[in-house]
Amino acid sequence: MVMRIKRKPIDELNALVDSVLGPHTPPIATVIPGEEVKVETWDALTRVTNPVTGPLEIEGAQPGDTLIVDIIDIELPEYGTTAIIPGFGALEGWLRLLEPRTKTSEIRDGKIHYTTDDGKIIEIEAAPFIGTIGVSPENEAITTLSPGRHGGNMDCPDVKPGNRLMLPVFRSGAIFSLGDVHAVQGDGEICGTAVEISAVVTLKFTLKKGQKINWPRVESSEEIMTVCSARPLEDAARLAYRELVDWMASDYGWGREDAYMFLSLVAKARIAQIVDPLYTVVAKLKKSYLRRS
Amino acid sequence: MVMRIKRKPIDELNALVDSVLGPHTPPIATVIPGEEVKVETWDALTRVTNPVTGPLEIEGAQPGDTLIVDIIDIELPEYGTTAIIPGFGALEGWLRLLEPRTKTSEIRDGKIHYTTDDGKIIEIEAAPFIGTIGVSPENEAITTLSPGRHGGNMDCPDVKPGNRLMLPVFRSGAIFSLGDVHAVQGDGEICGTAVEISAVVTLKFTLKKGQKINWPRVESSEEIMTVCSARPLEDAARLAYRELVDWMASDYGWGREDAYMFLSLVAKARIAQIVDPLYTVVAKLKKSYLRRS
Amino acid sequence: MVMRIKRKPIDELNALVDSVLGPHTPPIATVIPGEEVKVETWDALTRVTNPVTGPLEIEGAQPGDTLIVDIIDIELPEYGTTAIIPGFGALEGWLRLLEPRTKTSEIRDGKIHYTTDDGKIIEIEAAPFIGTIGVSPENEAITTLSPGRHGGNMDCPDVKPGNRLMLPVFRSGAIFSLGDVHAVQGDGEICGTAVEISAVVTLKFTLKKGQKINWPRVESSEEIMTVCSARPLEDAARLAYRELVDWMASDYGWGREDAYMFLSLVAKARIAQIVDPLYTVVAKLKKSYLRRS
Amino acid sequence: MVMRIKRKPIDELNALVDSVLGPHTPPIATVIPGEEVKVETWDALTRVTNPVTGPLEIEGAQPGDTLIVDIIDIELPEYGTTAIIPGFGALEGWLRLLEPRTKTSEIRDGKIHYTTDDGKIIEIEAAPFIGTIGVSPENEAITTLSPGRHGGNMDCPDVKPGNRLMLPVFRSGAIFSLGDVHAVQGDGEICGTAVEISAVVTLKFTLKKGQKINWPRVESSEEIMTVCSARPLEDAARLAYRELVDWMASDYGWGREDAYMFLSLVAKARIAQIVDPLYTVVAKLKKSYLRRS
Repeated sequence: MVMRIKRKPIDELNALVDSVLGPHTPPIATVIPGEEVKVETWDALTRVTNPVTGPLEIEGAQPGDTLIVDIIDIELPEYGTTAIIPGFGALEGWLRLLEPRTKTSEIRDGKIHYTTDDGKIIEIEAAPFIGTIGVSPENEAITTLSPGRHGGNMDCPDVKPGNRLMLPVFRSGAIFSLGDVHAVQGDGEICGTAVEISAVVTLKFTLKKGQKINWPRVESSEEIMTVCSARPLEDAARLAYRELVDWMASDYGWGREDAYMFLSLVAKARIAQIVDPLYTVVAKLKKSYLRRS
Repeated sequence: MVMRIKRKPIDELNALVDSVLGPHTPPIATVIPGEEVKVETWDALTRVTNPVTGPLEIEGAQPGDTLIVDIIDIELPEYGTTAIIPGFGALEGWLRLLEPRTKTSEIRDGKIHYTTDDGKIIEIEAAPFIGTIGVSPENEAITTLSPGRHGGNMDCPDVKPGNRLMLPVFRSGAIFSLGDVHAVQGDGEICGTAVEISAVVTLKFTLKKGQKINWPRVESSEEIMTVCSARPLEDAARLAYRELVDWMASDYGWGREDAYMFLSLVAKARIAQIVDPLYTVVAKLKKSYLRRS
Repeated sequence: MVMRIKRKPIDELNALVDSVLGPHTPPIATVIPGEEVKVETWDALTRVTNPVTGPLEIEGAQPGDTLIVDIIDIELPEYGTTAIIPGFGALEGWLRLLEPRTKTSEIRDGKIHYTTDDGKIIEIEAAPFIGTIGVSPENEAITTLSPGRHGGNMDCPDVKPGNRLMLPVFRSGAIFSLGDVHAVQGDGEICGTAVEISAVVTLKFTLKKGQKINWPRVESSEEIMTVCSARPLEDAARLAYRELVDWMASDYGWGREDAYMFLSLVAKARIAQIVDPLYTVVAKLKKSYLRRS
Repeated sequence: MVMRIKRKPIDELNALVDSVLGPHTPPIATVIPGEEVKVETWDALTRVTNPVTGPLEIEGAQPGDTLIVDIIDIELPEYGTTAIIPGFGALEGWLRLLEPRTKTSEIRDGKIHYTTDDGKIIEIEAAPFIGTIGVSPENEAITTLSPGRHGGNMDCPDVKPGNRLMLPVFRSGAIFSLGDVHAVQGDGEICGTAVEISAVVTLKFTLKKGQKINWPRVESSEEIMTVCSARPLEDAARLAYRELVDWMASDYGWGREDAYMFLSLVAKARIAQIVDPLYTVVAKLKKSYLRRS
């Protein structure tokens, strides 16, 4: 049986606890590592700023551990919303938007049905992922608008079913929350929103005791990935590549300079988003390069 | 018959003309649009800074035109070089490199044979492209280390055989040069170099008369792409997305806000490089989304 | 009689409450607007990260008010400390520091006695100010290392005796704290620290009810100033100038474009610091320009 | 007798030579070090983009030398112009300017008479300086809109009568030009222009043979200053402080870490401009601190 974590009734959402990731929000449930959990989430445009569901206390998690989150499944709703908000978005200054705009897209058979302004419909393959997912920072309570070392609003499309997210643990119990699921998102999330949805997410937690990481990491069947956030954007990229060099050194026996040169030849990078308080870059390396005999 | 443009003997390379793209270097040949041309290039580590072959005068090109360059073929040499240069590279400050390093890789059967510091060989699929390719700016002579609106050192892996590059024309005859071919490169080109090679490149030029573009563009069979360069990196991304919005508006009938929202859902972005005087981002849109009935 | 707020015994400093500004730290005292208060502070290098004294609840302060803080006096101690910390500071990557360093300077007769590495003493005029001073953000608890709209670690030398600081109020009671006094600091605080001191600060609070500001402001007898923090540094400058344009428009009757052109001729800007999580710029305008008949 | 360098008739200004600093513009005069020269300049808004007068060949200047330029005098005209240009300026995206605007100010008795939009006159003390001044880069021809290691459009108010500018020499004869004089300018030059004037500038050149500097420097009776340009703005600041550390080390015997700590306590920084292709910061140190016995 899978534990189901219900989201708060919409009227009870409270920005002081539901719009931050931090040590002061009391856990709503305790989860045993190894169990599967289903979590209901609100979409980012609901009532308070980008509300999350949680926090969950992960039994046994201690500062210095790594929390492993396997993304098992995301159940899609029937509709999703894309919005333009004046004062927000990568091209806001240039497009000189004066009015907010909202566009609702039907989601059916794994496809988003986007309606253009002149009424045509374009089908986009759904590629759902969790936009905001993270643990409590050590001392801070950070807005769910921002990504960081604790995860948060990374808007990273690689945090998707089939992949594994790794997060550093800063507080006893990890104090884990998630929300802001997207049905699909382009690199950069340039207008400030994706196809924003409420969803039901199935997760499984595991702990790597005493193994410390500095920033979130993702692993797919094909790639290892680091997810770092900073401004300006090149600093996010530098951090992500630095973490990848460190990962190659610590787990796969590479010399740092060798790893640096090799990544210069084969690494991939994704601009996750350039609209949140810090910008996010994902640096990627194919695992096939790491299986050297 | 294909015209062959020989590269200069290495002793005659002169940074004042071979390491800049500008209006003061006299053309070494005139090319008729529609003809194929084979151009020999030096690698970026040769004698003077990133030398280019050219310039070629494209007959009939006038300011305000668009120069179309179809990349037909790149002949690979047998070896390529990757270098770390202290004071250069995305992680330079962090890795605290004190000594330059060079690594030579054999290129055979379409594969780069990378030798790790402990002597193992990793095969990397070659994916050759032209790192530096551009026209003369209107008044400036810009170092071949820098990318810009004129093209230049974009280090964009999409400028590859099978794809079409479009460049704005600023001077009569376009004054086109190229060099700095890479056998393969990761996103970001983080150590400052890729697999640097000399090569023979086959190109074909066409002109779109009186059609002005602001920044380089690339077209593949699958995608349209814009290639913009700036610092910080987010400004390169903003420019590239802005150009893509403009392209959708001018050629495919999209409203600007509609294009902006749609790209927020489906666009891809590539960090081409974060090591040159300006950083380069490629924004991409699948053509299949543009064929709406 | 002046209320004196004692600092916590050093053993009781706790990063969870003393190294953040946020709504979860219980006030240690209530202050009536109009009263003078003396506050003891620890220096930034004490035990936990940049500890602050507080929070004080300001009676009657409500979200949307402006809290006015008159800086009356700063009592200097006999010594101050300057430190270099590897991984921190504006030139860290370039100087390739491997070891932390600490330098203690005697403070006597209003002068800092700086001892050079070869043993000479240079006298620097003391110019003490409060480095970290602010209120609780609305929902977040923000590290005392960071500046922001709530004030915080602005490291702004204009927050000094004789000047008036204005802060937006986000929470009932304002929830005000301060610490991190500097005996003197250069623009940029480039090595990451100034002459760090513990001190006794005399303040007086007033409220402007129902008058909302977006960012901290400072007023001296000569100038009005806005203090904004962001990355990259030019965004801090743009924000500070934008606030100054708004101030000229709302309080002094200037048109926005007119204010913009005028500031382009006469404004001053100070780089407060380029070492904290966000960088801080102070934009300044002489009041004499505002007294037009 | 003082040599007078006439500016070109306005109809003969040609962007290819008058709007770049580079090695391809033929010198219009040769100057002997030690002579005073009077140079007539156009204002930045004249016909072609920011035209300069020159280049002058400085007799005996060789790559690796330092060119010293003493600013003796600037004769002011009777009027100056301030302009807002859509798409340009630090707050352009925010103020959403749609129309260019120009404001002409009378200059009389050392004062600029600024007329506000509602017709009042504000007197601003004139503080004239040379906005664009520099030598030819080694191989590039750089637009006069941009500052750089060669000087150029630094818009640095410290390049004023009584002060000494030092420039690195990259080409034989230095190939020196200047223009873009401002009657007064605020820090940041935020609307993109200052009080733009044509002027007559009196200069004297000297050479420091075989003494190489990396970036422009300024010396006043009170201070030494370094002037560096980059994006983002913090990189300009880091470069300027790095040059100041180097200057203290090479000429005044300071250890680099000691200089770094000392500047963290006493340095001043000026944001010269945040509107040109690279942004400019001036880092300053009082000479009185350098006279240690």
